[in-house]
Amino acid sequence: MPVSIIGTSHTKVGFLNDKTLYDLILEAGKDALKDAELSGEDIDAVYVANFGGEDFNNQGHLAPYAVEIHEGLRFKPCVRIESACASGSAAVLEAINSIESGRSKTVLVIGAEKMSSLDTKGVSNVLAKASFWPLEGEKGFTFPSLYAELAKGYMSHFGYSKEELWDTLAYISCKAHKNAISNPFAQMHKEYSHEYASTVSDKNPLIAEPLKLSDCSLISDGAAALVLTTTERALELKSEVVEISGIASSCDYLSIVEGKRNNWEQKAIKIAAEKAFGEADLSIEDIHVAEVHDCFTINELLIYEALGIAEPGKGREALLRGDTFVGGKLPVNPSGGLKAKGHPVGATGVSMHVLVARQLLNKAIGLQVEGATNGLTVNVGGSGATNIVSVLRRIK
Amino acid sequence: MPVSIIGTSHTKVGFLNDKTLYDLILEAGKDALKDAELSGEDIDAVYVANFGGEDFNNQGHLAPYAVEIHEGLRFKPCVRIESACASGSAAVLEAINSIESGRSKTVLVIGAEKMSSLDTKGVSNVLAKASFWPLEGEKGFTFPSLYAELAKGYMSHFGYSKEELWDTLAYISCKAHKNAISNPFAQMHKEYSHEYASTVSDKNPLIAEPLKLSDCSLISDGAAALVLTTTERALELKSEVVEISGIASSCDYLSIVEGKRNNWEQKAIKIAAEKAFGEADLSIEDIHVAEVHDCFTINELLIYEALGIAEPGKGREALLRGDTFVGGKLPVNPSGGLKAKGHPVGATGVSMHVLVARQLLNKAIGLQVEGATNGLTVNVGGSGATNIVSVLRRIK
Repeated sequence: MPVSIIGTSHTKVGFLNDKTLYDLILEAGKDALKDAELSGEDIDAVYVANFGGEDFNNQGHLAPYAVEIHEGLRFKPCVRIESACASGSAAVLEAINSIESGRSKTVLVIGAEKMSSLDTKGVSNVLAKASFWPLEGEKGFTFPSLYAELAKGYMSHFGYSKEELWDTLAYISCKAHKNAISNPFAQMHKEYSHEYASTVSDKNPLIAEPLKLSDCSLISDGAAALVLTTTERALELKSEVVEISGIASSCDYLSIVEGKRNNWEQKAIKIAAEKAFGEADLSIEDIHVAEVHDCFTINELLIYEALGIAEPGKGREALLRGDTFVGGKLPVNPSGGLKAKGHPVGATGVSMHVLVARQLLNKAIGLQVEGATNGLTVNVGGSGATNIVSVLRRIK
Repeated sequence: MPVSIIGTSHTKVGFLNDKTLYDLILEAGKDALKDAELSGEDIDAVYVANFGGEDFNNQGHLAPYAVEIHEGLRFKPCVRIESACASGSAAVLEAINSIESGRSKTVLVIGAEKMSSLDTKGVSNVLAKASFWPLEGEKGFTFPSLYAELAKGYMSHFGYSKEELWDTLAYISCKAHKNAISNPFAQMHKEYSHEYASTVSDKNPLIAEPLKLSDCSLISDGAAALVLTTTERALELKSEVVEISGIASSCDYLSIVEGKRNNWEQKAIKIAAEKAFGEADLSIEDIHVAEVHDCFTINELLIYEALGIAEPGKGREALLRGDTFVGGKLPVNPSGGLKAKGHPVGATGVSMHVLVARQLLNKAIGLQVEGATNGLTVNVGGSGATNIVSVLRRIK
């Protein structure tokens, strides 16, 4: 029983000093219901994606707070899903299961995170809990240093120098910042020069060699929400419909430093993508737009290779050809991505689904990829332990 | 598509100083697979219930750790479900959705919590994050004081004196401790006298008036796991089968002190129970054994009234009649319950399902309720914001 999107919402992303985590949930939830032209009574279940509420906001057990969105949600099932930075897509998957099981007809999915309540070091410490603590966080690894392991593994395995990698990754960060200029909700509205992004400088220091400041995504507050229902009902209710035609999750070992998984590829993303494409009966060749998990620029490169946008070790060529730029073969992160749109971690997967759905409805938030009817999201938790891929299609 | 239990496991509950959170997950997961006579390859998805890993163990993003249970789980979807002390049953519900959607055939559900890493005050602070923080935890409310609000509301609404309530609640705590004597996995193996439990004393001080130490459940480490599959497949594979014939979740406002929900009843439990009974086509009269959420003795009393074991305000009469004692009409918490078996919060809902399933298979962990074929679980998160009821039936 396929499932479609009949309502979307997205808050501004950034340091939203006047908004609490609760405000973000209310705003995203209410706006999505409004967009769907539905009320709380019409919703059978609520899925709330959040990673660090306990640490950022002293709030666990967040899902029942959704009852405050509308009194019609009282006594409905509400549940919080946590898969680190992939929490949002994990919630979408559980929401789809709920509909496909027949237990729900229409479901509200909200992703929300309020990170700016802590300083940068505090946020870094909280995020480190998404690593395998005894071997990573506890040993002083932060997420920049975990993704640096992947960057080093990639250089070593495929024989790139640090300068070559920097040059490659600079295309990704410059693309992100350029795209974000048009996104009214993006956290950053500032273009990068290739020279700045490809060079270590006072303004662009190494964070975890070989990754520089310009390779790292942002600390953000923000929320997004979706209303999902059966495709059958969506086609009855709406004049324009985007279906989630395929979705799959693939988990790998929690730790990257332990060496049980390769540090030059994201194999589990490849597996999730194969399953999602299989379910949708589409391939990467059919996709017109993608929002993918560029928590660090190296991960966007690895995702190109996991998806088959480029052969293993050849992600750089896709960038040099301009394939993933708006106007290219498959624009990736026209929103600005996690790098420039921002990365409110628990919200990110829901945000990706909203952004791609809006692209396919020709109502992009920011840059519109003209004529896009098939889209993709890739959402990653930890250093690649949780990997969730969705294939979206405009069906009406 | 109904779902049945084909494997169960349960660790010892208590201060398990030699076991980490990871050890508990491995032990419960491996034992459940063994009990189901299945391997990692046979499992299509893993659901991990955990409340406080971030605070107790510096570990969020816990679900992919399940890959360590068996290499056959690598690349499968694994997700962590968090609904405070109802996380376990919330994970069971999501697992059932996954099977009923057709996306999974066989699923592993693990609930685990390792709380003894913090001292009592530390644990209390972490648990307070399951309240509505701005109005409750932040204002100094702990869970004993939140359930004290329900105890006071109950006394006031139904006209009981404190001494009458103490006398009533003493039956519940004495029953729990008596039952736990036979449970080899229980944290406490120590009988209470009615006089001790019904009186304030040096050894039984007030924790949050009117609740005394003897009214409060325990701080615990522990884990439990279930293997679920379609009833159709369960009947093919197994000579003895327990089905989860009905399950429902009902969420209410997060806060009890705000006054938006009544403080003399758990209305959302009643609603969840009605839905679960409706799905199972059974009623409370058909149930032979129940494991319910006695995080505080007052909550077991409120659950009697929500389920219709007693009329509103008359829970005391059910106790005086002996209805909920082993040998009575509907034995409640023959395991010793959260009060004496222990309450590793994220594991509790899974534990309840394991305990009831084992009762119905005539393989009780501890006291066996003779001839029981229909059972019930009631799992509560926060002060009654998340409420999940399951109806289990022996079908083969």
